[in-house]
Amino acid sequence: MTMDLLAQDLQVLNVGLASFADAISNTGGKVLEIEWAPPARGDREAARALARLVNHPFVEAANRQAFDAYLSSAPVIEGIAVAGDAIPGMHARIILHAGPPVAWDKMCGPMQGAILGAVLLEGWARDLDGAAKLAASGKIAFAPCHHHSAVGPMAGIISPSMPVWIVRDANSGRRSFSNLNEGIGKVLRFGAAGPEVIARLKWMASKLRKVLEAALKVSGEIELKPLIALALNMGDELHNRNAAATSLLLKRLVPAMVRSKASRADVAAAVDFIAGNGHFFLNLSMAACKAMLDAARGVAGSSMVTVMARNGVEFGIQTSGTGDRWFTTAAPVVDGLFFPGYSIADAAPDLGDSAITETAGLGGFAMAAAPAIVSFVGGTFKEAIANTAAMGHITVGRNGGFALPTMDFVGTPAGIDARKVVDTGILPIVNTGIAHRQAGVGQIGAGITRAPLDCFTKAVKALAAAVPDEPGPAAPAEAGRMTGP
Amino acid sequence: MTMDLLAQDLQVLNVGLASFADAISNTGGKVLEIEWAPPARGDREAARALARLVNHPFVEAANRQAFDAYLSSAPVIEGIAVAGDAIPGMHARIILHAGPPVAWDKMCGPMQGAILGAVLLEGWARDLDGAAKLAASGKIAFAPCHHHSAVGPMAGIISPSMPVWIVRDANSGRRSFSNLNEGIGKVLRFGAAGPEVIARLKWMASKLRKVLEAALKVSGEIELKPLIALALNMGDELHNRNAAATSLLLKRLVPAMVRSKASRADVAAAVDFIAGNGHFFLNLSMAACKAMLDAARGVAGSSMVTVMARNGVEFGIQTSGTGDRWFTTAAPVVDGLFFPGYSIADAAPDLGDSAITETAGLGGFAMAAAPAIVSFVGGTFKEAIANTAAMGHITVGRNGGFALPTMDFVGTPAGIDARKVVDTGILPIVNTGIAHRQAGVGQIGAGITRAPLDCFTKAVKALAAAVPDEPGPAAPAEAGRMTGP
Repeated sequence: MTMDLLAQDLQVLNVGLASFADAISNTGGKVLEIEWAPPARGDREAARALARLVNHPFVEAANRQAFDAYLSSAPVIEGIAVAGDAIPGMHARIILHAGPPVAWDKMCGPMQGAILGAVLLEGWARDLDGAAKLAASGKIAFAPCHHHSAVGPMAGIISPSMPVWIVRDANSGRRSFSNLNEGIGKVLRFGAAGPEVIARLKWMASKLRKVLEAALKVSGEIELKPLIALALNMGDELHNRNAAATSLLLKRLVPAMVRSKASRADVAAAVDFIAGNGHFFLNLSMAACKAMLDAARGVAGSSMVTVMARNGVEFGIQTSGTGDRWFTTAAPVVDGLFFPGYSIADAAPDLGDSAITETAGLGGFAMAAAPAIVSFVGGTFKEAIANTAAMGHITVGRNGGFALPTMDFVGTPAGIDARKVVDTGILPIVNTGIAHRQAGVGQIGAGITRAPLDCFTKAVKALAAAVPDEPGPAAPAEAGRMTGP
Repeated sequence: MTMDLLAQDLQVLNVGLASFADAISNTGGKVLEIEWAPPARGDREAARALARLVNHPFVEAANRQAFDAYLSSAPVIEGIAVAGDAIPGMHARIILHAGPPVAWDKMCGPMQGAILGAVLLEGWARDLDGAAKLAASGKIAFAPCHHHSAVGPMAGIISPSMPVWIVRDANSGRRSFSNLNEGIGKVLRFGAAGPEVIARLKWMASKLRKVLEAALKVSGEIELKPLIALALNMGDELHNRNAAATSLLLKRLVPAMVRSKASRADVAAAVDFIAGNGHFFLNLSMAACKAMLDAARGVAGSSMVTVMARNGVEFGIQTSGTGDRWFTTAAPVVDGLFFPGYSIADAAPDLGDSAITETAGLGGFAMAAAPAIVSFVGGTFKEAIANTAAMGHITVGRNGGFALPTMDFVGTPAGIDARKVVDTGILPIVNTGIAHRQAGVGQIGAGITRAPLDCFTKAVKALAAAVPDEPGPAAPAEAGRMTGP
């Protein structure tokens, strides 16, 4: 047999370093190369942490508990209110922003621009120069939306007088919040702060808020999960595409608006505004995802990711087992599809709380539901299917309530397991908009990016330090296990 | 070389009759069987007709002209009106029905049931017995919707007082018409005629019509092709699924309703009705398709199909080159997905003008756009893709304006070529609802069926008799050619 083997042509399967393969192919052998990298890309401390966490019964049980809580949540639109009244911990001189904490002088251009706009909206300064001086003076507090159960797309600015959606998890009673979507083009969330931006925000805070308040009094609470499930059947992934969800929401709100006390002119203007903004539902999608993931927070030992968020400087995540602690690293710059006249050189690094949708199994994780979006973020439909399939390797489970029609109604992959990200090196996909790096310009593109590995490596190390020692060999191993790519 | 061939194992590609293959495999040879049937399934007259028509420069040119006219049409909602006022040739005692012509005593149960309902709606009789006597008396004229530039789903009943959509091809100025969709369950189009059905139709003829009239005065004409194109991006195939298109239409109509002279109560009721009926857009989809195909009518020599329609007894088609002539055969019974308690034994044969959507490249031809519909009509998403791909073998071209996101935005296969159907044996797919065979019951299921070959064979024979002799060999052959499966 040995002789037979030696007599045959040399055929080698090379896994990992290409230099081994080169040596063989140089001598005439056939080599099939398999892409492979060591877990945690060779970080030995992370590898040890991973070895401790993988198949750990405590972690497996914690992840099941966290994932069940995520699945059981039932977010509903409870109402709309003024941020300063509704959001716990909002005070008269605080401005909330996207992503992990960041000081004024470290913020990216579009976040600074959006804050200046908010200062003008609040009437704290008379012009942009005055607003910039005030923002730098230390007299305004800045805090992440996530520290106040809130989420905001892109710059994610929420100032006290802005209207916010109140979303309640009917299962736990916990509330989450998001601001209202302004539409596209020159808008605050992309860092624009001109007079037309402020005028629109003022109309949203007065007329639009009142029409929506009046309508919600007539309609009562609106369940968000069934609406999201329907939208997934209609080509939305609920992050960069919310066309169907916005239409479905409008269908629910319009009869209530018409029957409400709001004036016909205000109702007509509100309907025009919502009907003309295919992203209007995004902020509700985000608040719903925040509610689902807050339900999974704080389960000791759970490696399930509860937050992915970016402030334009850093990308940060939180996991269920590590509570409110951020694990951050530099935010990537998105190499997406740019509007004419712009390129990656103009782009701010990745920005916004909207990656909460991916964290909850939507957005990039549900790309297979949204074939039409590939023309907006790049790629082909086959790649969209492959991306969704790949995410199944790094998640705790699937959300059967969010079925994907093009994959014969399998649920979206949901509940990112930080262990699996580090073990497989498969990085969570995020669909995102791209802001100009300077204040005042606005959106310049959209694309697909990946959450950076470093956040997950740091989280895994922290989790490993906190889990109890595994029971001895007498205790049978749990069924939960890692799944390779 | 001959010796070499004989020395090899016998490997045979067998096309057609399995008995040849059996003889070879019985002697130990390898056979790969290819499914094949002779053109026109062995009908020699049809085969001769086909031989005459295939690659005939006159037919190729005629098909290009007909297809261009189809592509160039631009259907818009011009308005809504009472059928007796708007539809040419409607008189005081006529009732229009789906499909090719059929006499009262030959009609299927649901069509008779729907006609009785229409007689009650018109006030021509006081009860169902009286209506049945009148219908059988010969004092009411019956005619196909298609004879009056109209289309109606299922029974397709249009009586003089019913409201109808007026769709105008902005390119040719030609008008088409359809009735308004009643929703699902016990409805006239599925043969139900109880008091609640008549009451709903009366409300539609009064309040709903007036709200829509008032709204269309404010909105102006609404282009239907862009709306259909958007809906294809949102999971509709515009025959059995119109959820997105209905939402998109509502988004256009609601601001106009609110700004119109209609009362708030009537607007609220109209919005509730439309928002609660995911099929509301179907009748507009059909009228739009009718407009697109009427644009292609009457091009001498063209084998492009301009009508496919069923009356619950016969399936009939028309082609551009043969004008208003029907080619009919027995309508198939649809073996689809039945509602609980019903089976194929309860089903009426295939019924309705709605196959006009497939004739125009939507419905079953656009299955790839509507992955969510497979749970309604049966099958898997892969089959939906395969069905759309197969239709590309029997169509004149593709409609780039109706792009399919899951097939990387290729246009829908459109403009059925009767020659290609007969030549390949690939039968046009139709998505359809299924009515109970008795009057008064209503819808009992939905499914996928196929247009019967016989209609196309008859059409091909008629076309062959009408085309001029081919020019001699001096005239170069045209580029157009048949495409195999």
